[in-house]
Amino acid sequence: MRATSPLLAARHARVRASIDVLSLDALVVTAASNIRYLTNHAGTAGVLVLTREAAHLLVDFRYRESVRALQESPAACPGLKVWDVPASYDEALLGCLADIGASVVGFEAADVTVKRHEYWRSAVEARRLDVGLRSTERVVEEARLIKDASEIATLREAAARLTPVAQAVFADVAAGRQERHVAGVLEAALRGAGFERPAFDTIVASGPNSALPHYRAGDRRLAAGDLVVLDFGGVLDGYCSDLTRTVAIGPPSPEARRLHAAVHAAQQAAIAAVRPGVENTAVDAVARAVLTEHGLGEAFGHGTGHGLGLDVHEEPRITWPRPDVPAVRLEPGMVFTVEPGAYLPGFGGVRIEDDVLVTETGCEVLTRVPRELLTL
Amino acid sequence: MRATSPLLAARHARVRASIDVLSLDALVVTAASNIRYLTNHAGTAGVLVLTREAAHLLVDFRYRESVRALQESPAACPGLKVWDVPASYDEALLGCLADIGASVVGFEAADVTVKRHEYWRSAVEARRLDVGLRSTERVVEEARLIKDASEIATLREAAARLTPVAQAVFADVAAGRQERHVAGVLEAALRGAGFERPAFDTIVASGPNSALPHYRAGDRRLAAGDLVVLDFGGVLDGYCSDLTRTVAIGPPSPEARRLHAAVHAAQQAAIAAVRPGVENTAVDAVARAVLTEHGLGEAFGHGTGHGLGLDVHEEPRITWPRPDVPAVRLEPGMVFTVEPGAYLPGFGGVRIEDDVLVTETGCEVLTRVPRELLTL
Repeated sequence: MRATSPLLAARHARVRASIDVLSLDALVVTAASNIRYLTNHAGTAGVLVLTREAAHLLVDFRYRESVRALQESPAACPGLKVWDVPASYDEALLGCLADIGASVVGFEAADVTVKRHEYWRSAVEARRLDVGLRSTERVVEEARLIKDASEIATLREAAARLTPVAQAVFADVAAGRQERHVAGVLEAALRGAGFERPAFDTIVASGPNSALPHYRAGDRRLAAGDLVVLDFGGVLDGYCSDLTRTVAIGPPSPEARRLHAAVHAAQQAAIAAVRPGVENTAVDAVARAVLTEHGLGEAFGHGTGHGLGLDVHEEPRITWPRPDVPAVRLEPGMVFTVEPGAYLPGFGGVRIEDDVLVTETGCEVLTRVPRELLTL
Repeated sequence: MRATSPLLAARHARVRASIDVLSLDALVVTAASNIRYLTNHAGTAGVLVLTREAAHLLVDFRYRESVRALQESPAACPGLKVWDVPASYDEALLGCLADIGASVVGFEAADVTVKRHEYWRSAVEARRLDVGLRSTERVVEEARLIKDASEIATLREAAARLTPVAQAVFADVAAGRQERHVAGVLEAALRGAGFERPAFDTIVASGPNSALPHYRAGDRRLAAGDLVVLDFGGVLDGYCSDLTRTVAIGPPSPEARRLHAAVHAAQQAAIAAVRPGVENTAVDAVARAVLTEHGLGEAFGHGTGHGLGLDVHEEPRITWPRPDVPAVRLEPGMVFTVEPGAYLPGFGGVRIEDDVLVTETGCEVLTRVPRELLTL
């Protein structure tokens, strides 16, 4: 379900409030998911120039048809003006800025490369345009932190559709199967559940590979005694879901059971800590404290979770206090994963991940798949 | 097959020659595919600092195990020094630059964002480090333009493995099937052929959707009279393959036949034009001229092709002369797609794509799938 025109108008209003605070004439939006959030245009290319009055969308030949169809639908972007890009997006952007007379122009510093910025600056100078470029951060991202009704409905549906996908893979996992085969079963099940594509590279990490948190899926065959980390998700109408379960092939060893129980306890404690007013880092601290109590503090090297939305990794980041991660106080409407893990090199690893929506009083767990250590 | 240590050493030597020309003490490599090219480290995170003497690889907890295993293999990176990243990559990078005493430091302007660059500059200033940051472009990309023996072997194998994938999908395409179902069949076949993942979002665009060059796959069911564009590829040992065929559901109309014949002729003419010494834009001009002769110049809005390697879109770009695309004279060892198309809004579209390797005398077509208009 795409956002309707009134929802898009509300998003524009939130971003325009920031444009006012920053005293900009226009904000150049280049991050694809930010453009989609503000216009419903879902292309891999495009530039949006948002002003107080209009939303100028620059697109090339490939998107003429889809943008035209969008504007004839109930999901039409309000105030949209379409600019044709015959060759270079940067050329078209400078032409647009000159034509609309925007002179104080913000751009997204976390998306624009130094190369692109250097080109813009030199072209502005060479053409003596009255355009001052201002670096901005987190303008659209700030608006995206709290999901609106349309986004919540889509994220809830996307998470729910992972249940049959998990069932399909549990039915297929068995000793002798290749990791790659299991990943193929997962991805076919994602398509079968109506997802448009996997949200990220599916992970099927078995035995010692399960101790490698960013392993994907290889040639190894599942064997008795393995722990197998299954991490998968799909994209529904642009929105991402993300789930991890760890299963055992044959009866798990006492060590495997202990590892799983500790991660399970950490994940449940972290989910229980989620409610409005709590800092993002506090949720991470809860998971970390439980694993540390179990002597697994060192074995948990990544953050506890990440925001989910049009991007599979977005704000809020649920991690320890870090200079590069904005501190965020949780509010109703935020959606993120809770996924502690513990990894013992040579032995194996466990990760358990669910998607949660912050509510007025706590959180709603959107993904519904048993968390016990399944023996397959 | 990963590059062996001697091949990596040869790649380092090529990049170090550029480091000398640019009078740098070190090159900070942040683009993931450039890091993989120079080290075999295939993570989604990492920073490489290449100096005349060493290759300093900064990685976090998640990759400790995989880098250790890599360095014990025949694909070990020569001169590798591993730096642990406890929290922030940028903090670790500044610490590394200070420790090794690099003062003239190049960075990849096409990869580094303005935000990251601003952070580096302010941290260098705040800590009074003797580090001057210099914007560079296309240093590693220039080396990657010409594939070495290991890369050619992998790209040849990746392209060859698309033949059974195409056969599987041709056997499954039929009226009544949903586009999304066909995409699922394609992706399962890619896994079955041994690819680690799809190289990009699989495209199954039927009927009027085939006129949208960047449509992916949706709910539409294939129907008699449709043209269906099938665009898919897989990643093998990090290297990408990419193939497009357009098929007809039931007997094609004369208009569909004409469209297909024109694109086929343009593609064959472009492939015939590929040989050392020819400019990238000349290959595009050949395809464009054939389509223009058929009255389809306007219907062909994208470039004729793109380089293939660790990235699915890399240099050389086969397109018309554009200020943002480097002019490249073809040389043996370059690998790229040749994929003209023609799109008639409301009616449908045709695209035909193969992967070619430039040889001493012309080119080798790496993908082997019939190009005739199949009726399914």
